[in-house]
Amino acid sequence: MNQLDQYYMARALQLAEQGLWSTDPNPRVGCVIVRDGEIVGEGWHEVAGEPHAEVHALQMAKEKAQGATCYVTLEPCCHHGRTPPCTDALIKAGITRVVAASTDPNPIVASKGIEQLNKAGIVVNVGVLGSQAEQLNPGFFMRMRRNRPYIRCKLAMSLDGRTAMASGESQWITSQDARRDVQGLRARSSAVMTGAGTILADNPRMTVRETELPQHLYKPKIIRQPIRAIVDAHLSCTPSARIFEKPGQVVIFTASSNETIKTMLETAGAHVFSLPRGTKGDIDLQEMCYRLATDFHVNELLLETGATLSGSMLKAGLIDEIIIYMAPVLMGNKARGLFNLPEIELMKQRLSLNITDIRAIGCDWRITAQPAF
Amino acid sequence: MNQLDQYYMARALQLAEQGLWSTDPNPRVGCVIVRDGEIVGEGWHEVAGEPHAEVHALQMAKEKAQGATCYVTLEPCCHHGRTPPCTDALIKAGITRVVAASTDPNPIVASKGIEQLNKAGIVVNVGVLGSQAEQLNPGFFMRMRRNRPYIRCKLAMSLDGRTAMASGESQWITSQDARRDVQGLRARSSAVMTGAGTILADNPRMTVRETELPQHLYKPKIIRQPIRAIVDAHLSCTPSARIFEKPGQVVIFTASSNETIKTMLETAGAHVFSLPRGTKGDIDLQEMCYRLATDFHVNELLLETGATLSGSMLKAGLIDEIIIYMAPVLMGNKARGLFNLPEIELMKQRLSLNITDIRAIGCDWRITAQPAF
Repeated sequence: MNQLDQYYMARALQLAEQGLWSTDPNPRVGCVIVRDGEIVGEGWHEVAGEPHAEVHALQMAKEKAQGATCYVTLEPCCHHGRTPPCTDALIKAGITRVVAASTDPNPIVASKGIEQLNKAGIVVNVGVLGSQAEQLNPGFFMRMRRNRPYIRCKLAMSLDGRTAMASGESQWITSQDARRDVQGLRARSSAVMTGAGTILADNPRMTVRETELPQHLYKPKIIRQPIRAIVDAHLSCTPSARIFEKPGQVVIFTASSNETIKTMLETAGAHVFSLPRGTKGDIDLQEMCYRLATDFHVNELLLETGATLSGSMLKAGLIDEIIIYMAPVLMGNKARGLFNLPEIELMKQRLSLNITDIRAIGCDWRITAQPAF
Repeated sequence: MNQLDQYYMARALQLAEQGLWSTDPNPRVGCVIVRDGEIVGEGWHEVAGEPHAEVHALQMAKEKAQGATCYVTLEPCCHHGRTPPCTDALIKAGITRVVAASTDPNPIVASKGIEQLNKAGIVVNVGVLGSQAEQLNPGFFMRMRRNRPYIRCKLAMSLDGRTAMASGESQWITSQDARRDVQGLRARSSAVMTGAGTILADNPRMTVRETELPQHLYKPKIIRQPIRAIVDAHLSCTPSARIFEKPGQVVIFTASSNETIKTMLETAGAHVFSLPRGTKGDIDLQEMCYRLATDFHVNELLLETGATLSGSMLKAGLIDEIIIYMAPVLMGNKARGLFNLPEIELMKQRLSLNITDIRAIGCDWRITAQPAF
């Protein structure tokens, strides 16, 4: 190990982060090549199907890669996917040491890249800034390890914890700054999800709007539209809803077998995906999340929904992070709340969270918390 | 004016703050006496009836007060109260310049102290760190200017904006650190107030408990108990309630004329104060706050109550500051909320606030906001 390993890996992580909105379903990966204390190559992965971070960095380093150290935020791949294996490229370029932040979380491929490098006589160190590398790709790691996405639940509330008037009116609780921030959350997500109730009540588009994205992050050439997923147990969505408009893919998860409505919604452009029923006549949420990971390669899922679905997801242990935008307003006790949790009757049944971040977003405040139950 | 005026006044404000828990009903006042760039006297007012800040500072300065400048956070008094006028003492000691942060807010006495000093040939400058001096005494200024207390509403809530279970169970939402912080709020208040409903449901003592006070503030010789005020329109409190236990004064505000119950409650130690009825068969809250200021000399009032009374006070424009302790837990939509505001039906009717402070208190978060409507 080298005292400067963290320094170069931090730079590789900065590079990796530029792929925040574009690498999906691949992970965000950055790479730095260093020879004699000088950075001779840098690269990061931008779009799936295009070269990996290591290839970009080697291209920049050219012959200076000979005898150099390669810092990469994820174990180099050793298989032929849409691009050739990075391990071959590193060996061929004459790299003599590889420092990786993390092994590949996919249990099938984990550490095979490292083995190949070792066999070629390359020294490999793993674990430098490992947790930071994982934090950059929470969904990719979750999908590889547990076959489900990393699930964020985004909510906008008043200071007194209300998300909408009793009538359902809710536009807008938060300021434009907060709504821009949400655009950034959507842009990094593989899929955004809502319930049929929200579609019927608010008729949202749920797209990423390029002009509304936060300005301080790297903006890729092409803004990717996340999958728009609708939980609609009984197929009550109307095909004229704005969520079906182009661009982007729409998936409806249902437990209904009504072929007529299914055909109508498919004609509107949606992919209707049948799932078994859940315990209460709705749909099996665990199975839905499994399918999102396995069939749709969803790394990060953003839940933007009402209190019933968010409450059910929370209760099912299917929320990893709650992001609340809190506006400095009061809406009163008649207004609607965040989570329907009908089982909670006693103080000892309340659900504990860890608040990991609180910060001002314009005149609103953003609170990030993770379930601790 | 002098470039160092702010410097010495800041020191006077630090001294004044040591009276936070003890000067009531007097304001917190600090004083610094400076001669030839050297602090020769310091003082602050500790307990009503004991010497004012200026007198302490002059006692320390002795003959060095001759030709010195006196920095004081409030205009010196010029009347015989429980102690002789400070203006006389300053003149007699040979002070040649007085810098005051603020004039006395009492319209009857305002600027008379300054006039007396001027007549004696003393140069007087007013307004150095004036808003800071006022912030230290929000209740005293409010009472003098508007004949009502400065009213804080303290609430403890879950992250999803709930203050109690549907059953009323609420102990404890927040951690011990937050509850200590509340003890500090009580200690600085002239009175704490709750409703009869809270007395019947939770049977709180509502006292200041010396051992639970925050450790980082100056602790006075004697811990003063704020008046415990109960809003009880129909005299439904039971005389056996813990709030009636010694020490401290208890006042019940009521619109009831039931002399039998009134006598029972007075026997239990309460002062029962009759008020006109309000618009909804409850009591006239404006009149109550006027009486708190004029009859009970209440500077700062701390409201620790349920959603009905806090909602009514808010609607009546009788809340100046909301302090919310937010615990990192979820209690669900069946649980109780912060403010009953039945009139709010539409988004445009929501009440705007200015959030002035958010900070961690142990594992909870304290949010301070002021109505902006």
